[in-house]
Amino acid sequence: MSELTHVNAAGEAHMVDVGHKDPGRRVATAAGRLDTTAEVVEKLRGNGLAKGDALATARVAGIMAAKRTWELVPLCHPIALSKITVEFELGEESVAVRAQVANNDRTGVEMEALTAVTVAALTLVDMVKAVDPAAEINGVGVVEKVGGKTGLWQRN
Amino acid sequence: MSELTHVNAAGEAHMVDVGHKDPGRRVATAAGRLDTTAEVVEKLRGNGLAKGDALATARVAGIMAAKRTWELVPLCHPIALSKITVEFELGEESVAVRAQVANNDRTGVEMEALTAVTVAALTLVDMVKAVDPAAEINGVGVVEKVGGKTGLWQRN
Amino acid sequence: MSELTHVNAAGEAHMVDVGHKDPGRRVATAAGRLDTTAEVVEKLRGNGLAKGDALATARVAGIMAAKRTWELVPLCHPIALSKITVEFELGEESVAVRAQVANNDRTGVEMEALTAVTVAALTLVDMVKAVDPAAEINGVGVVEKVGGKTGLWQRN
Amino acid sequence: MSELTHVNAAGEAHMVDVGHKDPGRRVATAAGRLDTTAEVVEKLRGNGLAKGDALATARVAGIMAAKRTWELVPLCHPIALSKITVEFELGEESVAVRAQVANNDRTGVEMEALTAVTVAALTLVDMVKAVDPAAEINGVGVVEKVGGKTGLWQRN
Amino acid sequence: MSELTHVNAAGEAHMVDVGHKDPGRRVATAAGRLDTTAEVVEKLRGNGLAKGDALATARVAGIMAAKRTWELVPLCHPIALSKITVEFELGEESVAVRAQVANNDRTGVEMEALTAVTVAALTLVDMVKAVDPAAEINGVGVVEKVGGKTGLWQRN
Amino acid sequence: MSELTHVNAAGEAHMVDVGHKDPGRRVATAAGRLDTTAEVVEKLRGNGLAKGDALATARVAGIMAAKRTWELVPLCHPIALSKITVEFELGEESVAVRAQVANNDRTGVEMEALTAVTVAALTLVDMVKAVDPAAEINGVGVVEKVGGKTGLWQRN
Repeated sequence: MSELTHVNAAGEAHMVDVGHKDPGRRVATAAGRLDTTAEVVEKLRGNGLAKGDALATARVAGIMAAKRTWELVPLCHPIALSKITVEFELGEESVAVRAQVANNDRTGVEMEALTAVTVAALTLVDMVKAVDPAAEINGVGVVEKVGGKTGLWQRN
Repeated sequence: MSELTHVNAAGEAHMVDVGHKDPGRRVATAAGRLDTTAEVVEKLRGNGLAKGDALATARVAGIMAAKRTWELVPLCHPIALSKITVEFELGEESVAVRAQVANNDRTGVEMEALTAVTVAALTLVDMVKAVDPAAEINGVGVVEKVGGKTGLWQRN
Repeated sequence: MSELTHVNAAGEAHMVDVGHKDPGRRVATAAGRLDTTAEVVEKLRGNGLAKGDALATARVAGIMAAKRTWELVPLCHPIALSKITVEFELGEESVAVRAQVANNDRTGVEMEALTAVTVAALTLVDMVKAVDPAAEINGVGVVEKVGGKTGLWQRN
Repeated sequence: MSELTHVNAAGEAHMVDVGHKDPGRRVATAAGRLDTTAEVVEKLRGNGLAKGDALATARVAGIMAAKRTWELVPLCHPIALSKITVEFELGEESVAVRAQVANNDRTGVEMEALTAVTVAALTLVDMVKAVDPAAEINGVGVVEKVGGKTGLWQRN
Repeated sequence: MSELTHVNAAGEAHMVDVGHKDPGRRVATAAGRLDTTAEVVEKLRGNGLAKGDALATARVAGIMAAKRTWELVPLCHPIALSKITVEFELGEESVAVRAQVANNDRTGVEMEALTAVTVAALTLVDMVKAVDPAAEINGVGVVEKVGGKTGLWQRN
Repeated sequence: MSELTHVNAAGEAHMVDVGHKDPGRRVATAAGRLDTTAEVVEKLRGNGLAKGDALATARVAGIMAAKRTWELVPLCHPIALSKITVEFELGEESVAVRAQVANNDRTGVEMEALTAVTVAALTLVDMVKAVDPAAEINGVGVVEKVGGKTGLWQRN
């Protein structure tokens, strides 16, 4: 098993050199979940209007955060992104969040997809925390990544 | 049960007025967890040196992100923060993340504590994703909040 | 008539000292307008659903931008904001934008309200530019300001 | 007439995929105008020195804002910019603002040019608001765009 | 001699709690110097016009950076600033930079004044690097601080 | 000797056009120094543990700042960076800071390397200012640049 790539032999953090990699299409999909109450899910649903401002605000927050991943995660490379989508699926006592990010650059976009998911979920928490202070974010992880040297990876 | 505070009667998002609230000490503690493999935890432990750059980088990322919560979460108020701590506890196959934020302002700091936890956890994911692409963030929620009109709240 | 306050006697820009001012409630309202075509207004209306993502996205953009005014306008003070609202009114060939910002600080919030209006309008332009590249922003100005030493000011 | 490109069939906002587009030279020019009083224009002119800090500050603000367009306008792509200019022309009771932005990327730079114009104009408003609280921004729109699939577009 | 305040007993970085401190007027002055060639200083002087865009741009950059100190320096508190000035004095082969920052908050503003000086100096380097790639920044330090528990401190 | 490239014939600042340049590997190394006391250096050394949070925090700050150079230095181009390293060497009464930045773009990365050095040094000042308010940053300059039209440049 390889060492932690972001820390050199002396244990010091660095932004690893990706300059020798070939630019190319890379796509990553990440998912996560807000666990809350059935009542809160109903409020987010907005009487059947899933396109109300509550979800729209969280979607925009996730999209905007994906673009700023490199400002938040210290060793991420600043990269151009060519596509970002954030989707919600309302369950009984939870909201599933799914984000997909693509680029045409020298490094992958898993962190960007994960950042979109977590900030969208945080925004939902902010919306519901007055009615459900115990709301929790769970299951945030990469679902699939395509492209780059390692090719396709999918969560089992 | 009250309505979603961040959305008005017409369903439109707004940043609610906190100008009438009294400034005062508010403290929030949040927690979360990176679920990964025993091997990855060993690498983060750095041969017994829990203060290596890996955890330090994630701690700094969490602290810096807490200060930028209002840039990320659309309806959060921009507020001064008087204290931020981020702590890690290495388990067998997981890393527990805990953050505490305090302020002397007109609104609470739960979102700031949650943002510190999630960005610290995202930074750990970034560090370990080459060796464990299936790493997952779970259990992100408020643990305790003190101060403000609602006073003390604690997760059961 | 007084001199330009942001430039000193030598003609040099500076961020003027507001430290001697009393903190207090200040509210500013600004307005502006997107001039476009009747067809575009229909699309934004979304078949009667004024709460679709198009307007919600522009509203969120305006709210978020207001908080970052001091990052954009070089001589604006970084200040806490206690309230931000952004509203749209769909006309025949235009969309009226109106923003209100309040704080409890040592300086006014006109620039924050104006920034909310302009960035919300820019976001609408971004949405409609593929169908109306000639869309134009007009009439961006302060409507009313309340509080501070100068008290109430209203556009005639 | 095509639909709004930034909103999908379900009415949800997304950052559209530009990954399939060819990179290439794109140039956009935008314009706008600060309407104020003859006295204010004289102050900005600075006794004949059009290069005083007032206009220089607004120019720098516009240039810096153009680079941050993707942080402000939610569905804009983060892109590298290869050129930004901001110019002012002092009229009798107005200041004309004109910006030109170029890139070598997969999407156009109209929004960047418009952001440069509006933030430069907002900075002028900030400078003059103490002497002319009724100052207004008008006529903000794209003047010309060159490059990309749609080729040349010019405002009539 | 006290320990490093930003690192706890376990050697972990944290943003120290200033919530118990009294808000009050604090002023800090910092200075620094760009060492370059006589020819470069002449160019910056702009044929006798010290108010040309070169120095104005660097001044604006310093002022804007001071406001973002807490985004750059990880353990700095986000604070409101009530005043920022940046001044240049052209020497024979150097440009002296001096910044003053004031606030009415719970912690000092030395880091803000130092950030203003360094970013103003970096901007000058950017301006002159094509003609003097060996330009160097020297002597960046606090000159004086007033206010707070420690009261007046002056460099000898 | 050429004119200041960032100011046009009329003395106005602009972000120069690099669109005609060829993309290619560019690497820049910059250095600087924190001058402080022997006691402070010992504290930073952390009883022999040079990898304690103090230096790790400054290293992360430098890396993150390099990525934001274009937000700080007004006329710098926003560019992707492929590598960033920041290193410290503890002397008797000083800490040497060295940063290396690489990209594959149309313009050089000297400013990014210099920004990494200065923000890392500012973070050290922040850490030590309570024990050494007279700490000073000196000798900040480019050490070497490789690539681009001008090819190799090295400080004598």
